[in-house]
Amino acid sequence: MQNFVFQNPTKILFGRGTIPEIGPETALFGKTALLVYGRSSIKKNGIYDQAVASLTDAGIQIVEHGNVRTNPVLSHVREGILLAKEHKVDVVVAIGGGSVLDSAKAICAGAMVEHDVWLFFKGKKSVKTALPMLSILTLAASGSEMNSAMVVTNEETEQKFGFANKLLYPKTSILDPEATFSVPADYTAFGAVDAIAHILEFYFTTEDPHTPVHDRFMEGLIITIMESCERVLKDLSDYQGRADLMWCATLALNGLTGAGLGKVGFPMHLIEHSLSGIYDVPHGAGLSVVIPGWMRHASQERPVKFAQFAQRIFKIAGEDTATMAAEGISRLEAWFQSVNSPTDLGALDIPEADIPKIAENCLALAKVWRMREYTKEKIESILKLCC
Amino acid sequence: MQNFVFQNPTKILFGRGTIPEIGPETALFGKTALLVYGRSSIKKNGIYDQAVASLTDAGIQIVEHGNVRTNPVLSHVREGILLAKEHKVDVVVAIGGGSVLDSAKAICAGAMVEHDVWLFFKGKKSVKTALPMLSILTLAASGSEMNSAMVVTNEETEQKFGFANKLLYPKTSILDPEATFSVPADYTAFGAVDAIAHILEFYFTTEDPHTPVHDRFMEGLIITIMESCERVLKDLSDYQGRADLMWCATLALNGLTGAGLGKVGFPMHLIEHSLSGIYDVPHGAGLSVVIPGWMRHASQERPVKFAQFAQRIFKIAGEDTATMAAEGISRLEAWFQSVNSPTDLGALDIPEADIPKIAENCLALAKVWRMREYTKEKIESILKLCC
Repeated sequence: MQNFVFQNPTKILFGRGTIPEIGPETALFGKTALLVYGRSSIKKNGIYDQAVASLTDAGIQIVEHGNVRTNPVLSHVREGILLAKEHKVDVVVAIGGGSVLDSAKAICAGAMVEHDVWLFFKGKKSVKTALPMLSILTLAASGSEMNSAMVVTNEETEQKFGFANKLLYPKTSILDPEATFSVPADYTAFGAVDAIAHILEFYFTTEDPHTPVHDRFMEGLIITIMESCERVLKDLSDYQGRADLMWCATLALNGLTGAGLGKVGFPMHLIEHSLSGIYDVPHGAGLSVVIPGWMRHASQERPVKFAQFAQRIFKIAGEDTATMAAEGISRLEAWFQSVNSPTDLGALDIPEADIPKIAENCLALAKVWRMREYTKEKIESILKLCC
Repeated sequence: MQNFVFQNPTKILFGRGTIPEIGPETALFGKTALLVYGRSSIKKNGIYDQAVASLTDAGIQIVEHGNVRTNPVLSHVREGILLAKEHKVDVVVAIGGGSVLDSAKAICAGAMVEHDVWLFFKGKKSVKTALPMLSILTLAASGSEMNSAMVVTNEETEQKFGFANKLLYPKTSILDPEATFSVPADYTAFGAVDAIAHILEFYFTTEDPHTPVHDRFMEGLIITIMESCERVLKDLSDYQGRADLMWCATLALNGLTGAGLGKVGFPMHLIEHSLSGIYDVPHGAGLSVVIPGWMRHASQERPVKFAQFAQRIFKIAGEDTATMAAEGISRLEAWFQSVNSPTDLGALDIPEADIPKIAENCLALAKVWRMREYTKEKIESILKLCC
């Protein structure tokens, strides 16, 4: 195990009937809240009404900032920052999935400075102070509800960048599995893929060969995510399946899986960000395309960990690590297909001829994330394995 | 999964060379610190000197309160409270294992009130404010370094009671595995038993039949604790083994294993507290005596979970859950013996004839902990299985 610092102050309120807690929790941080949310779904399923009633009962003035879109865009974040400044809001309340929560975090940081918020994403400025942020989660996927990270797309430059800062942990996140009942099958699966991807990034990129605590924790999460996703796809209103999926997705990226692994990278996210940044495909769908290709490429270098993955996740026995690794990757790929998440670029209508352009796009983020080993040639060769 | 609230604000600094962080971390909370520690070990292994140098360099005035003993006693906590009040300390720094950390927490609570600190343990008063507390951990066992609980023995009444309050999470805990190199083999094993016991309490007492996220997390911790304990017993200075043991013990009782399990009990601790409360045996040694007996008793009622334990921890296959459960319990008992932790009352020099007296002692804590199903008869029948 490597040295680490771990601290995660987010308060989680988990379970049925927790949404009405948003008012009292928000009132701890101020009187005027910017309410950030997406498109129509929370108005259809009643979550918007419940939250607004609770906030109003708690004496909170609400400033609305709806219409956050999937793969949230910088222009909309900038509008939110202007609103937050104009109305001198004390606190930001996000209701939605990762896109909404990430936008809200960026607004919390951007509202406290005079410079453009994109400078944080480019690593040119660091966050020194931020508005407090609370969330009601409506999609099990990003883990944003209990971490300090956010990802936003600059639609002018087609750059999908992310950063993290400890001031941007949500103060309180409300996780009611029933709030995810209305998520359709495709986005449920994409969310599960995203959560699995977060775990795989840590699992396969740590260079520490001795991480038994972390490995077993992550393997347990992956198995439970797959099981609960399958359960939910049979019945979208299966409470236990929704609950397991939700809590696993949170635990997958709340800092605990990586604490002690030393330097890790996010190569699958690096490449996927170019797919959703350029083609606006769902993030989870992009990931299920990139993951098998990246794994096939990376397993050439370090087959032992990939064989462990095959053995512990899919009970694949054997002697030859390369064979076991290959079979484990194929089984994961087959699982993605079984939940109707795409596994090749063609399924996303992205032509193979675009690979050089995608790789070029990746390089800017690889520079910001200090992943210089991801050269254009390397990214292209991985993308060729995704066809 | 059941509804839950989870928030754990403790900052963990983990790894080699982290002890000198204690000064700067403490300085965030004040200028005068009560330094709580045990007997001679930290002066022999240099940890005391390192910590005092760091605190002094950070401008902290130190008030000493050493000589905390294993199974810490109320009278010594009361002395610490008087010292804290007399010197108007701003912060308490604990260096030691669970006994020291628990004493320090009790002092943090007691120093802010005029009434006797024991009223908190009896559930007659609740903590409204507390001094901030930081720790340097020197024993992998109790989990006190990242939770809000403490246990102290009232030596006048032979009552070993515990309570928890969210104001008593350590602000910062420093976990340097090298600080545990000097822990001898017996206490290393007792610490591993304690950590396993914390997990088993949650694992077996939840009444929720569907807890896959939690089960897999806990099973991974148990297996890793056993593996790392074996590794350390072969070489007390094995860094990776010490590190895994330390982090597993912390994760075993930081709130995460139980979040979502609903109502759980601590029956094995309930009974063991009477053993160490009356006979002053090491807590872990008392636990390895109580655990197999309690498991044999409890597995009669719910063999399925015990069979799952047998299957996932010891790879025991079979059809009959009762047989699998029994074999799993025997294997755990054999493991305790393999690390030289006792598994019957006789090995602790406690005569079987004392069982009624022990059971009587248990009842007071069962009342405070609201475990009224633990009648004298039930406790006696469990203790008879521990002979």
